[in-house]
Amino acid sequence: MSDCAQLAPTARNWKLTLAYDGTDFSGWQIQPGQPTIQGTLQLALGRITGESPLPQGSGRTDAGVHAVGQVASFVLNAPIPPGNLLRALNRILPSSIRVRDAQIVDDTFHARHSAKAKTYEYRVYLEKSAAGTSNCPPFLARYVYAYPWPLDVDTLRESAAHFIGEHDFLSFAATDPDLAARESAPQPDTAPLIATPARTAVRTIYSSIWEREQISGGELFVYRVRGNGFLHHMVRNLVGTMLDVGRGYRRASEIPAMLAARTRSAAGPTAPASGLFLHSVEY
Amino acid sequence: MSDCAQLAPTARNWKLTLAYDGTDFSGWQIQPGQPTIQGTLQLALGRITGESPLPQGSGRTDAGVHAVGQVASFVLNAPIPPGNLLRALNRILPSSIRVRDAQIVDDTFHARHSAKAKTYEYRVYLEKSAAGTSNCPPFLARYVYAYPWPLDVDTLRESAAHFIGEHDFLSFAATDPDLAARESAPQPDTAPLIATPARTAVRTIYSSIWEREQISGGELFVYRVRGNGFLHHMVRNLVGTMLDVGRGYRRASEIPAMLAARTRSAAGPTAPASGLFLHSVEY
Repeated sequence: MSDCAQLAPTARNWKLTLAYDGTDFSGWQIQPGQPTIQGTLQLALGRITGESPLPQGSGRTDAGVHAVGQVASFVLNAPIPPGNLLRALNRILPSSIRVRDAQIVDDTFHARHSAKAKTYEYRVYLEKSAAGTSNCPPFLARYVYAYPWPLDVDTLRESAAHFIGEHDFLSFAATDPDLAARESAPQPDTAPLIATPARTAVRTIYSSIWEREQISGGELFVYRVRGNGFLHHMVRNLVGTMLDVGRGYRRASEIPAMLAARTRSAAGPTAPASGLFLHSVEY
Repeated sequence: MSDCAQLAPTARNWKLTLAYDGTDFSGWQIQPGQPTIQGTLQLALGRITGESPLPQGSGRTDAGVHAVGQVASFVLNAPIPPGNLLRALNRILPSSIRVRDAQIVDDTFHARHSAKAKTYEYRVYLEKSAAGTSNCPPFLARYVYAYPWPLDVDTLRESAAHFIGEHDFLSFAATDPDLAARESAPQPDTAPLIATPARTAVRTIYSSIWEREQISGGELFVYRVRGNGFLHHMVRNLVGTMLDVGRGYRRASEIPAMLAARTRSAAGPTAPASGLFLHSVEY
Protein backbone atom coordinates (compact mmCIF):
# COMPACT_ATOMS: atom_id res chain seq x y z
CA MET A 1 0.00 0.00 0.00
CA SER A 2 1.52 3.35 -1.03
CA ASP A 3 0.50 5.12 2.17
CA CYS A 4 2.28 2.64 4.41
CA ALA A 5 5.66 3.66 5.71
CA GLN A 6 8.23 1.18 4.40
CA LEU A 7 10.60 -0.18 7.02
CA ALA A 8 14.15 0.11 5.91
CA PRO A 9 15.32 -3.42 5.28
CA THR A 10 17.72 -4.62 7.92
CA ALA A 11 20.44 -6.91 6.71
CA ARG A 12 20.57 -10.14 8.69
CA ASN A 13 23.32 -12.69 8.78
CA TRP A 14 22.09 -16.28 8.32
CA LYS A 15 23.52 -19.65 9.28
CA LEU A 16 22.10 -22.76 7.60
CA THR A 17 22.90 -26.37 8.46
CA LEU A 18 22.56 -28.61 5.41
CA ALA A 19 22.51 -32.31 4.60
CA TYR A 20 22.98 -33.45 1.04
CA ASP A 21 23.50 -36.48 -1.15
CA GLY A 22 26.43 -35.28 -3.28
CA THR A 23 26.23 -38.08 -5.86
CA ASP A 24 24.46 -36.09 -8.54
CA PHE A 25 26.21 -32.75 -7.88
CA SER A 26 29.49 -31.40 -9.22
CA GLY A 27 30.49 -30.52 -5.66
CA TRP A 28 29.73 -27.52 -3.44
CA GLN A 29 31.23 -24.71 -5.47
CA ILE A 30 29.12 -22.93 -8.07
CA GLN A 31 30.15 -23.64 -11.67
CA PRO A 32 28.37 -22.43 -14.80
CA GLY A 33 26.21 -25.14 -16.35
CA GLN A 34 26.91 -27.68 -13.58
CA PRO A 35 24.58 -28.81 -10.79
CA THR A 36 26.25 -27.64 -7.56
CA ILE A 37 25.04 -27.37 -3.97
CA GLN A 38 26.03 -23.71 -3.67
CA GLY A 39 24.36 -22.79 -6.98
CA THR A 40 21.18 -24.73 -6.21
CA LEU A 41 20.93 -23.05 -2.79
CA GLN A 42 21.53 -19.59 -4.27
CA LEU A 43 18.76 -20.13 -6.83
CA ALA A 44 16.33 -21.28 -4.13
CA LEU A 45 17.10 -18.24 -1.96
CA GLY A 46 16.49 -16.04 -5.00
CA ARG A 47 13.09 -17.60 -5.65
CA ILE A 48 12.03 -17.10 -2.03
CA THR A 49 13.42 -13.65 -1.26
CA GLY A 50 14.27 -12.01 -4.59
CA GLU A 51 17.83 -11.72 -3.27
CA SER A 52 20.61 -14.00 -4.43
CA PRO A 53 23.48 -13.89 -1.97
CA LEU A 54 26.18 -16.49 -2.67
CA PRO A 55 26.10 -18.81 0.37
CA GLN A 56 29.56 -19.31 1.86
CA GLY A 57 30.21 -22.90 2.93
CA SER A 58 32.39 -24.06 5.82
CA GLY A 59 34.53 -25.56 3.06
CA ARG A 60 34.06 -26.96 -0.41
CA THR A 61 33.00 -30.54 -0.83
CA ASP A 62 34.08 -32.28 -4.03
CA ALA A 63 31.81 -33.91 -6.60
CA GLY A 64 30.13 -36.96 -5.07
CA VAL A 65 30.98 -36.06 -1.46
CA HIS A 66 28.03 -35.92 0.93
CA ALA A 67 27.20 -33.82 3.96
CA VAL A 68 25.20 -34.45 7.09
CA GLY A 69 26.05 -31.11 8.69
CA GLN A 70 27.55 -28.67 6.16
CA VAL A 71 27.18 -25.05 7.33
CA ALA A 72 26.57 -22.07 5.06
CA SER A 73 26.31 -18.36 5.84
CA PHE A 74 24.95 -15.39 3.84
CA VAL A 75 23.26 -12.03 4.34
CA LEU A 76 19.61 -11.34 3.47
CA ASN A 77 17.61 -8.14 3.65
CA ALA A 78 14.23 -9.88 3.54
CA PRO A 79 12.73 -9.96 7.08
CA ILE A 80 11.72 -13.63 6.92
CA PRO A 81 11.37 -15.68 10.14
CA PRO A 82 13.85 -18.61 10.39
CA GLY A 83 11.15 -21.33 10.46
CA ASN A 84 9.58 -19.89 7.31
CA LEU A 85 12.88 -19.76 5.43
CA LEU A 86 13.63 -23.36 6.43
CA ARG A 87 10.24 -24.62 5.24
CA ALA A 88 10.31 -22.55 2.05
CA LEU A 89 13.79 -23.85 1.18
CA ASN A 90 12.81 -27.47 1.83
CA ARG A 91 9.78 -26.99 -0.40
CA ILE A 92 11.89 -25.66 -3.30
CA LEU A 93 15.16 -27.58 -2.98
CA PRO A 94 15.48 -31.06 -4.51
CA SER A 95 15.04 -33.94 -2.04
CA SER A 96 18.81 -34.52 -2.28
CA ILE A 97 19.44 -31.28 -0.32
CA ARG A 98 17.74 -30.63 3.02
CA VAL A 99 18.02 -27.65 5.32
CA ARG A 100 18.22 -29.09 8.83
CA ASP A 101 18.46 -25.78 10.68
CA ALA A 102 18.17 -22.06 9.88
CA GLN A 103 19.23 -19.32 12.30
CA ILE A 104 19.83 -15.58 12.28
CA VAL A 105 23.31 -15.11 13.77
CA ASP A 106 25.72 -12.37 14.80
CA ASP A 107 27.06 -10.24 11.93
CA THR A 108 30.59 -11.47 12.56
CA PHE A 109 29.73 -15.12 11.87
CA HIS A 110 31.22 -16.61 8.70
CA ALA A 111 30.74 -20.30 7.89
CA ARG A 112 34.37 -20.77 6.85
CA HIS A 113 36.34 -18.14 8.79
CA SER A 114 34.59 -18.82 12.10
CA ALA A 115 34.99 -22.62 11.97
CA LYS A 116 37.06 -24.06 14.85
CA ALA A 117 36.90 -27.75 14.03
CA LYS A 118 35.38 -30.15 11.55
CA THR A 119 34.46 -33.81 11.64
CA TYR A 120 34.35 -36.07 8.60
CA GLU A 121 33.14 -39.65 8.28
CA TYR A 122 34.22 -42.13 5.66
CA ARG A 123 32.18 -45.30 5.15
CA VAL A 124 33.64 -48.49 3.68
CA TYR A 125 31.37 -51.42 2.85
CA LEU A 126 33.07 -54.77 3.05
CA GLU A 127 31.52 -57.95 1.80
CA LYS A 128 31.82 -61.10 3.84
CA SER A 129 32.81 -62.95 0.70
CA ALA A 130 35.09 -60.24 -0.65
CA ALA A 131 36.78 -61.59 -3.77
CA GLY A 132 37.51 -58.82 -6.22
CA THR A 133 33.94 -57.93 -7.17
CA SER A 134 31.31 -56.11 -5.23
CA ASN A 135 27.88 -57.33 -4.20
CA CYS A 136 27.22 -54.10 -2.28
CA PRO A 137 23.45 -53.54 -1.95
CA PRO A 138 22.41 -50.95 -4.56
CA PHE A 139 20.76 -48.87 -1.82
CA LEU A 140 24.13 -48.41 -0.09
CA ALA A 141 26.35 -48.06 -3.15
CA ARG A 142 26.00 -44.27 -3.42
CA TYR A 143 27.02 -43.80 0.23
CA VAL A 144 30.00 -46.09 0.71
CA TYR A 145 33.23 -47.24 -0.85
CA ALA A 146 32.37 -50.82 -1.77
CA TYR A 147 35.71 -52.41 -0.96
CA PRO A 148 36.34 -55.79 -2.54
CA TRP A 149 39.21 -57.01 -0.31
CA PRO A 150 39.42 -58.26 3.29
CA LEU A 151 40.44 -55.64 5.86
CA ASP A 152 41.92 -55.99 9.30
CA VAL A 153 40.28 -53.53 11.69
CA ASP A 154 43.12 -53.58 14.24
CA THR A 155 45.60 -52.54 11.56
CA LEU A 156 43.23 -49.78 10.42
CA ARG A 157 43.03 -48.50 14.01
CA GLU A 158 46.78 -48.62 14.42
CA SER A 159 47.15 -46.58 11.21
CA ALA A 160 44.54 -44.02 12.27
CA ALA A 161 46.32 -43.34 15.56
CA HIS A 162 49.41 -42.11 13.68
CA PHE A 163 47.49 -39.08 12.38
CA ILE A 164 46.43 -37.74 15.80
CA GLY A 165 48.18 -34.50 16.80
CA GLU A 166 49.81 -31.70 14.81
CA HIS A 167 51.42 -32.86 11.58
CA ASP A 168 52.40 -31.51 8.21
CA PHE A 169 49.93 -33.32 5.92
CA LEU A 170 51.46 -32.29 2.59
CA SER A 171 51.86 -35.96 1.61
CA PHE A 172 48.10 -36.35 2.01
CA ALA A 173 47.05 -33.19 0.12
CA ALA A 174 45.91 -33.05 -3.49
CA THR A 175 48.72 -31.70 -5.62
CA ASP A 176 46.73 -28.54 -6.39
CA PRO A 177 48.62 -25.42 -7.46
CA ASP A 178 47.33 -23.71 -4.33
CA LEU A 179 47.00 -26.39 -1.71
CA ALA A 180 45.25 -24.21 0.83
CA ALA A 181 42.74 -22.72 -1.59
CA ARG A 182 40.25 -25.58 -1.43
CA GLU A 183 39.94 -26.10 2.30
CA SER A 184 40.11 -24.00 5.41
CA ALA A 185 43.55 -23.06 6.68
CA PRO A 186 44.02 -23.01 10.47
CA GLN A 187 41.96 -20.16 11.82
CA PRO A 188 43.55 -16.74 12.45
CA ASP A 189 42.81 -16.95 16.17
CA THR A 190 44.92 -20.09 16.49
CA ALA A 191 47.89 -18.22 14.97
CA PRO A 192 47.18 -14.59 15.84
CA LEU A 193 50.72 -13.35 15.34
CA ILE A 194 50.98 -14.38 11.71
CA ALA A 195 49.98 -11.34 9.65
CA THR A 196 49.55 -13.12 6.31
CA PRO A 197 48.11 -16.62 6.63
CA ALA A 198 50.85 -19.07 5.77
CA ARG A 199 50.08 -21.55 2.99
CA THR A 200 50.94 -24.37 5.30
CA ALA A 201 49.93 -28.01 5.29
CA VAL A 202 50.16 -28.23 9.08
CA ARG A 203 46.89 -29.31 10.63
CA THR A 204 45.92 -30.68 14.03
CA ILE A 205 43.89 -33.89 14.23
CA TYR A 206 42.03 -34.28 17.52
CA SER A 207 40.63 -37.75 16.96
CA SER A 208 40.98 -40.43 14.31
CA ILE A 209 39.17 -43.74 14.81
CA TRP A 210 37.67 -46.68 12.94
CA GLU A 211 34.39 -48.27 14.03
CA ARG A 212 32.99 -51.53 12.72
CA GLU A 213 29.30 -52.25 12.25
CA GLN A 214 27.55 -55.44 11.11
CA ILE A 215 24.94 -54.92 8.43
CA SER A 216 22.96 -57.37 6.33
CA GLY A 217 25.25 -59.16 3.91
CA GLY A 218 28.43 -57.48 5.04
CA GLU A 219 30.17 -55.07 7.35
CA LEU A 220 30.55 -51.31 7.47
CA PHE A 221 33.92 -49.87 8.50
CA VAL A 222 33.41 -46.23 9.48
CA TYR A 223 36.34 -43.84 9.87
CA ARG A 224 35.67 -40.68 11.87
CA VAL A 225 38.22 -37.89 11.99
CA ARG A 226 38.01 -34.53 13.79
CA GLY A 227 40.55 -31.75 13.26
CA ASN A 228 41.09 -28.01 13.07
CA GLY A 229 41.17 -28.09 9.29
CA PHE A 230 41.63 -30.40 6.34
CA LEU A 231 43.50 -30.00 3.06
CA HIS A 232 41.93 -30.76 -0.30
CA HIS A 233 41.44 -34.56 -0.62
CA MET A 234 43.07 -35.05 2.78
CA VAL A 235 40.46 -37.37 4.32
CA ARG A 236 40.22 -39.43 1.13
CA ASN A 237 44.02 -39.72 0.99
CA LEU A 238 44.24 -40.73 4.65
CA VAL A 239 41.59 -43.39 4.02
CA GLY A 240 43.17 -44.66 0.79
CA THR A 241 46.46 -45.05 2.61
CA MET A 242 44.92 -46.76 5.65
CA LEU A 243 43.03 -49.20 3.40
CA ASP A 244 46.34 -50.17 1.76
CA VAL A 245 47.59 -50.90 5.27
CA GLY A 246 44.38 -52.69 6.34
CA ARG A 247 44.66 -54.91 3.28
CA GLY A 248 48.29 -55.72 3.97
CA TYR A 249 49.98 -53.80 1.13
CA ARG A 250 51.79 -51.46 3.51
CA ARG A 251 52.48 -51.30 7.23
CA ALA A 252 51.04 -48.88 9.78
CA SER A 253 54.59 -48.27 11.01
CA GLU A 254 55.41 -46.66 7.63
CA ILE A 255 52.97 -43.79 8.22
CA PRO A 256 55.35 -41.49 10.20
CA ALA A 257 57.78 -41.68 7.27
CA MET A 258 54.96 -40.89 4.81
CA LEU A 259 54.14 -37.76 6.83
CA ALA A 260 57.81 -36.77 7.04
CA ALA A 261 58.31 -37.14 3.28
CA ARG A 262 56.02 -34.16 2.57
CA THR A 263 55.34 -35.42 -0.92
CA ARG A 264 52.11 -36.84 -2.32
CA SER A 265 53.76 -39.91 -3.85
CA ALA A 266 54.85 -41.14 -0.42
CA ALA A 267 51.26 -41.85 0.63
CA GLY A 268 48.55 -44.13 -0.72
CA PRO A 269 45.73 -43.63 -3.24
CA THR A 270 42.73 -41.30 -2.96
CA ALA A 271 39.65 -43.20 -1.77
CA PRO A 272 36.47 -42.57 -3.82
CA ALA A 273 34.24 -39.57 -3.06
CA SER A 274 31.13 -41.73 -2.49
CA GLY A 275 32.21 -42.84 1.01
CA LEU A 276 32.92 -39.35 2.37
CA PHE A 277 30.54 -37.31 4.56
CA LEU A 278 31.16 -33.88 6.06
CA HIS A 279 29.66 -34.76 9.42
CA SER A 280 29.72 -31.50 11.40
CA VAL A 281 31.42 -28.13 11.85
CA GLU A 282 32.16 -26.60 15.24
CA TYR A 283 32.25 -22.83 15.90
CA MET B 1 42.50 -74.41 -31.57
CA SER B 2 41.23 -75.82 -34.85
CA ASP B 3 42.16 -79.45 -34.01
CA CYS B 4 40.08 -79.54 -30.83
CA ALA B 5 36.68 -81.15 -31.08
CA GLN B 6 34.05 -78.53 -30.26
CA LEU B 7 31.49 -79.63 -27.71
CA ALA B 8 28.02 -78.98 -28.94
CA PRO B 9 26.70 -76.16 -26.80
CA THR B 10 24.06 -77.27 -24.35
CA ALA B 11 21.35 -74.74 -23.65
CA ARG B 12 20.95 -74.06 -19.94
CA ASN B 13 18.09 -72.34 -18.23
CA TRP B 14 19.23 -69.65 -15.76
CA LYS B 15 17.59 -68.08 -12.74
CA LEU B 16 19.02 -64.80 -11.41
CA THR B 17 17.99 -63.01 -8.22
CA LEU B 18 18.49 -59.25 -8.53
CA ALA B 19 18.47 -56.18 -6.31
CA TYR B 20 18.24 -52.74 -7.86
CA ASP B 21 17.79 -49.09 -7.09
CA GLY B 22 15.09 -48.20 -9.61
CA THR B 23 15.40 -44.41 -9.22
CA ASP B 24 17.43 -43.79 -12.34
CA PHE B 25 15.77 -46.44 -14.52
CA SER B 26 12.67 -46.25 -16.69
CA GLY B 27 11.42 -49.45 -15.07
CA TRP B 28 12.12 -53.11 -15.76
CA GLN B 29 10.89 -53.44 -19.33
CA ILE B 30 13.26 -52.77 -22.20
CA GLN B 31 12.49 -49.57 -24.14
CA PRO B 32 14.54 -48.08 -26.97
CA GLY B 33 16.74 -45.20 -25.79
CA GLN B 34 15.72 -45.55 -22.12
CA PRO B 35 17.78 -46.97 -19.25
CA THR B 36 15.92 -50.09 -18.13
CA ILE B 37 16.83 -53.00 -15.87
CA GLN B 38 15.95 -55.62 -18.48
CA GLY B 39 17.90 -53.81 -21.21
CA THR B 40 20.96 -53.22 -19.01
CA LEU B 41 21.00 -56.88 -17.97
CA GLN B 42 20.64 -58.06 -21.56
CA LEU B 43 23.59 -55.89 -22.64
CA ALA B 44 25.75 -57.21 -19.80
CA LEU B 45 24.91 -60.83 -20.69
CA GLY B 46 25.85 -60.06 -24.30
CA ARG B 47 29.24 -58.66 -23.28
CA ILE B 48 30.01 -61.72 -21.17
CA THR B 49 28.71 -64.54 -23.35
CA GLY B 50 28.19 -63.12 -26.84
CA GLU B 51 24.56 -64.19 -26.46
CA SER B 52 21.79 -61.69 -25.76
CA PRO B 53 18.73 -63.49 -24.46
CA LEU B 54 16.00 -61.15 -23.22
CA PRO B 55 15.76 -61.90 -19.48
CA GLN B 56 12.18 -62.56 -18.36
CA GLY B 57 11.30 -60.93 -15.04
CA SER B 58 8.85 -62.24 -12.45
CA GLY B 59 6.91 -59.12 -13.32
CA ARG B 60 7.60 -55.61 -14.54
CA THR B 61 8.52 -52.96 -12.06
CA ASP B 62 7.64 -49.38 -12.97
CA ALA B 63 10.05 -46.46 -13.28
CA GLY B 64 11.48 -45.61 -9.85
CA VAL B 65 10.37 -48.88 -8.21
CA HIS B 66 13.14 -50.85 -6.48
CA ALA B 67 13.79 -54.55 -5.98
CA VAL B 68 15.51 -56.52 -3.28
CA GLY B 69 14.65 -59.90 -4.80
CA GLN B 70 13.47 -59.61 -8.39
CA VAL B 71 13.88 -62.89 -10.28
CA ALA B 72 14.79 -63.22 -13.97
CA SER B 73 15.14 -66.26 -16.20
CA PHE B 74 16.77 -66.79 -19.60
CA VAL B 75 18.52 -69.47 -21.66
CA LEU B 76 22.26 -69.42 -22.44
CA ASN B 77 24.37 -71.75 -24.54
CA ALA B 78 27.67 -70.63 -23.03
CA PRO B 79 28.88 -73.27 -20.52
CA ILE B 80 29.75 -70.73 -17.81
CA PRO B 81 29.75 -71.79 -14.12
CA PRO B 82 27.17 -69.92 -11.99
CA GLY B 83 29.74 -68.26 -9.70
CA ASN B 84 31.61 -66.94 -12.71
CA LEU B 85 28.48 -65.51 -14.32
CA LEU B 86 27.52 -63.82 -11.03
CA ARG B 87 30.94 -62.21 -10.61
CA ALA B 88 31.20 -61.19 -14.27
CA LEU B 89 27.75 -59.56 -14.18
CA ASN B 90 28.53 -57.66 -10.96
CA ARG B 91 31.75 -56.42 -12.54
CA ILE B 92 29.94 -55.08 -15.62
CA LEU B 93 26.58 -53.94 -14.24
CA PRO B 94 26.25 -50.48 -12.70
CA SER B 95 26.38 -50.41 -8.87
CA SER B 96 22.62 -49.70 -8.92
CA ILE B 97 21.97 -53.31 -10.09
CA ARG B 98 23.39 -56.29 -8.22
CA VAL B 99 23.05 -59.98 -8.94
CA ARG B 100 22.50 -61.64 -5.57
CA ASP B 101 22.27 -65.20 -6.81
CA ALA B 102 22.76 -67.09 -10.10
CA GLN B 103 21.62 -70.68 -10.62
CA ILE B 104 21.16 -73.13 -13.46
CA VAL B 105 17.61 -74.44 -13.13
CA ASP B 106 15.25 -76.94 -14.67
CA ASP B 107 14.22 -76.19 -18.27
CA THR B 108 10.61 -75.72 -17.21
CA PHE B 109 11.38 -72.81 -14.88
CA HIS B 110 10.09 -69.39 -16.00
CA ALA B 111 10.47 -66.35 -13.75
CA ARG B 112 6.92 -65.14 -14.39
CA HIS B 113 4.94 -68.27 -15.22
CA SER B 114 6.40 -70.34 -12.39
CA ALA B 115 5.85 -67.71 -9.67
CA LYS B 116 3.49 -68.85 -6.88
CA ALA B 117 3.56 -65.76 -4.65
CA LYS B 118 5.19 -62.36 -4.37
CA THR B 119 5.97 -60.04 -1.51
CA TYR B 120 6.21 -56.26 -1.82
CA GLU B 121 7.30 -53.70 0.74
CA TYR B 122 6.34 -50.05 0.76
CA ARG B 123 8.30 -47.62 2.97
CA VAL B 124 6.84 -44.36 4.25
CA TYR B 125 9.06 -41.87 6.06
CA LEU B 126 7.22 -39.73 8.57
CA GLU B 127 8.78 -36.74 10.23
CA LYS B 128 8.21 -36.15 13.89
CA SER B 129 7.41 -32.54 13.13
CA ALA B 130 5.33 -33.23 10.04
CA ALA B 131 3.88 -29.95 8.82
CA GLY B 132 3.41 -29.97 5.08
CA THR B 133 7.09 -29.96 4.06
CA SER B 134 9.64 -32.71 4.21
CA ASN B 135 12.93 -32.80 6.09
CA CYS B 136 13.52 -36.39 4.99
CA PRO B 137 17.26 -37.15 5.11
CA PRO B 138 18.61 -36.95 1.53
CA PHE B 139 20.12 -40.45 1.92
CA LEU B 140 16.65 -41.92 2.47
CA ALA B 141 14.69 -39.80 -0.01
CA ARG B 142 15.17 -42.13 -2.99
CA TYR B 143 13.89 -45.13 -1.01
CA VAL B 144 10.79 -43.86 0.78
CA TYR B 145 7.65 -41.85 0.35
CA ALA B 146 8.45 -38.78 2.47
CA TYR B 147 5.01 -38.22 3.92
CA PRO B 148 4.38 -34.79 5.36
CA TRP B 149 1.32 -35.53 7.51
CA PRO B 150 0.76 -37.40 10.80
CA LEU B 151 -0.38 -41.02 10.45
CA ASP B 152 -2.13 -43.31 12.86
CA VAL B 153 -0.61 -46.79 12.74
CA ASP B 154 -3.65 -48.56 14.24
CA THR B 155 -5.84 -47.16 11.49
CA LEU B 156 -3.29 -48.21 8.88
CA ARG B 157 -3.34 -51.75 10.30
CA GLU B 158 -7.13 -51.85 10.35
CA SER B 159 -7.12 -50.79 6.68
CA ALA B 160 -4.53 -53.37 5.69
CA ALA B 161 -6.54 -56.22 7.22
CA HIS B 162 -9.43 -55.55 4.81
CA PHE B 163 -7.28 -56.63 1.85
CA ILE B 164 -6.45 -60.11 3.18
CA GLY B 165 -8.14 -62.96 1.29
CA GLU B 166 -9.50 -63.28 -2.24
CA HIS B 167 -10.89 -60.04 -3.64
CA ASP B 168 -11.56 -58.38 -6.96
CA PHE B 169 -8.98 -55.56 -6.91
CA LEU B 170 -10.21 -53.70 -10.01
CA SER B 171 -10.67 -50.51 -7.95
CA PHE B 172 -6.96 -50.69 -7.10
CA ALA B 173 -5.65 -51.41 -10.60
CA ALA B 174 -4.19 -48.85 -13.00
CA THR B 175 -6.77 -48.07 -15.65
CA ASP B 176 -4.61 -49.59 -18.37
CA PRO B 177 -6.28 -50.78 -21.57
CA ASP B 178 -5.20 -54.30 -20.66
CA LEU B 179 -5.19 -54.51 -16.89
CA ALA B 180 -3.59 -57.90 -16.68
CA ALA B 181 -0.83 -57.23 -19.20
CA ARG B 182 1.54 -55.54 -16.77
CA GLU B 183 1.53 -58.00 -13.91
CA SER B 184 1.14 -61.69 -13.44
CA ALA B 185 -2.34 -63.13 -13.59
CA PRO B 186 -3.15 -65.93 -11.13
CA GLN B 187 -1.12 -68.96 -12.13
CA PRO B 188 -2.61 -71.69 -14.34
CA ASP B 189 -2.30 -74.27 -11.57
CA THR B 190 -4.53 -72.22 -9.29
CA ALA B 191 -7.28 -72.20 -11.93
CA PRO B 192 -6.62 -75.34 -13.95
CA LEU B 193 -10.08 -75.61 -15.50
CA ILE B 194 -10.00 -72.22 -17.23
CA ALA B 195 -8.73 -72.86 -20.74
CA THR B 196 -7.98 -69.24 -21.67
CA PRO B 197 -6.61 -67.17 -18.79
CA ALA B 198 -9.36 -64.82 -17.71
CA ARG B 199 -8.43 -61.12 -17.64
CA THR B 200 -9.58 -60.98 -14.10
CA ALA B 201 -8.70 -58.60 -11.29
CA VAL B 202 -9.27 -61.29 -8.65
CA ARG B 203 -6.17 -61.83 -6.54
CA THR B 204 -5.51 -63.50 -3.20
CA ILE B 205 -3.65 -61.59 -0.52
CA TYR B 206 -2.07 -63.85 2.11
CA SER B 207 -0.77 -61.17 4.44
CA SER B 208 -1.02 -57.41 4.65
CA ILE B 209 0.62 -55.65 7.61
CA TRP B 210 2.15 -52.34 8.68
CA GLU B 211 5.26 -52.20 10.88
CA ARG B 212 6.65 -49.10 12.54
CA GLU B 213 10.34 -48.40 13.08
CA GLN B 214 12.06 -45.48 14.84
CA ILE B 215 14.89 -43.94 12.87
CA SER B 216 16.96 -40.82 13.47
CA GLY B 217 14.79 -37.72 13.02
CA GLY B 218 11.58 -39.57 12.25
CA GLU B 219 9.75 -42.84 11.84
CA LEU B 220 9.51 -45.41 9.11
CA PHE B 221 6.13 -47.04 8.43
CA VAL B 222 6.69 -50.20 6.40
CA TYR B 223 3.84 -51.98 4.64
CA ARG B 224 4.46 -55.59 3.68
CA VAL B 225 2.04 -57.46 1.45
CA ARG B 226 2.23 -61.04 0.16
CA GLY B 227 -0.14 -62.41 -2.46
CA ASN B 228 -0.53 -64.75 -5.43
CA GLY B 229 -0.31 -61.86 -7.88
CA PHE B 230 -0.63 -58.10 -8.14
CA LEU B 231 -2.22 -55.85 -10.76
CA HIS B 232 -0.40 -52.90 -12.28
CA HIS B 233 -0.04 -50.15 -9.62
CA MET B 234 -1.95 -52.30 -7.15
CA VAL B 235 0.42 -52.00 -4.18
CA ARG B 236 0.85 -48.25 -4.71
CA ASN B 237 -2.92 -47.84 -4.92
CA LEU B 238 -3.50 -49.89 -1.77
CA VAL B 239 -0.90 -47.74 0.02
CA GLY B 240 -2.26 -44.42 -1.29
CA THR B 241 -5.71 -45.43 -0.07
CA MET B 242 -4.48 -46.61 3.34
CA LEU B 243 -2.51 -43.37 3.84
CA ASP B 244 -5.71 -41.39 3.20
CA VAL B 245 -7.27 -43.48 5.96
CA GLY B 246 -4.23 -43.18 8.27
CA ARG B 247 -4.32 -39.43 7.87
CA GLY B 248 -8.03 -39.29 8.66
CA TYR B 249 -9.42 -38.37 5.21
CA ARG B 250 -11.32 -41.65 4.88
CA ARG B 251 -12.30 -44.54 7.15
CA ALA B 252 -10.99 -48.08 7.16
CA SER B 253 -14.60 -49.29 7.21
CA GLU B 254 -15.09 -47.80 3.72
CA ILE B 255 -12.59 -50.23 2.17
CA PRO B 256 -15.02 -53.14 1.56
CA ALA B 257 -17.24 -50.74 -0.41
CA MET B 258 -14.21 -49.54 -2.41
CA LEU B 259 -13.43 -53.15 -3.35
CA ALA B 260 -17.06 -53.84 -4.23
CA ALA B 261 -17.27 -50.76 -6.48
CA ARG B 262 -14.80 -52.31 -8.98
CA THR B 263 -13.91 -48.88 -10.31
CA ARG B 264 -10.63 -47.01 -9.90
CA SER B 265 -12.27 -43.77 -8.76
CA ALA B 266 -13.69 -45.48 -5.66
CA ALA B 267 -10.23 -45.90 -4.15
CA GLY B 268 -7.48 -43.47 -3.13
CA PRO B 269 -4.47 -42.01 -4.94
CA THR B 270 -1.41 -43.87 -6.25
CA ALA B 271 1.48 -43.61 -3.79
CA PRO B 272 4.85 -42.62 -5.35
CA ALA B 273 7.14 -45.24 -6.91
CA SER B 274 10.11 -44.35 -4.67
CA GLY B 275 8.67 -46.17 -1.62
CA LEU B 276 8.01 -49.49 -3.38
CA PHE B 277 10.29 -52.56 -3.26
CA LEU B 278 9.69 -55.93 -4.89
CA HIS B 279 10.87 -57.92 -1.88
CA SER B 280 10.77 -61.54 -3.01
CA VAL B 281 9.21 -64.07 -5.36
CA GLU B 282 8.25 -67.59 -4.31
CA TYR B 283 8.27 -70.59 -6.66
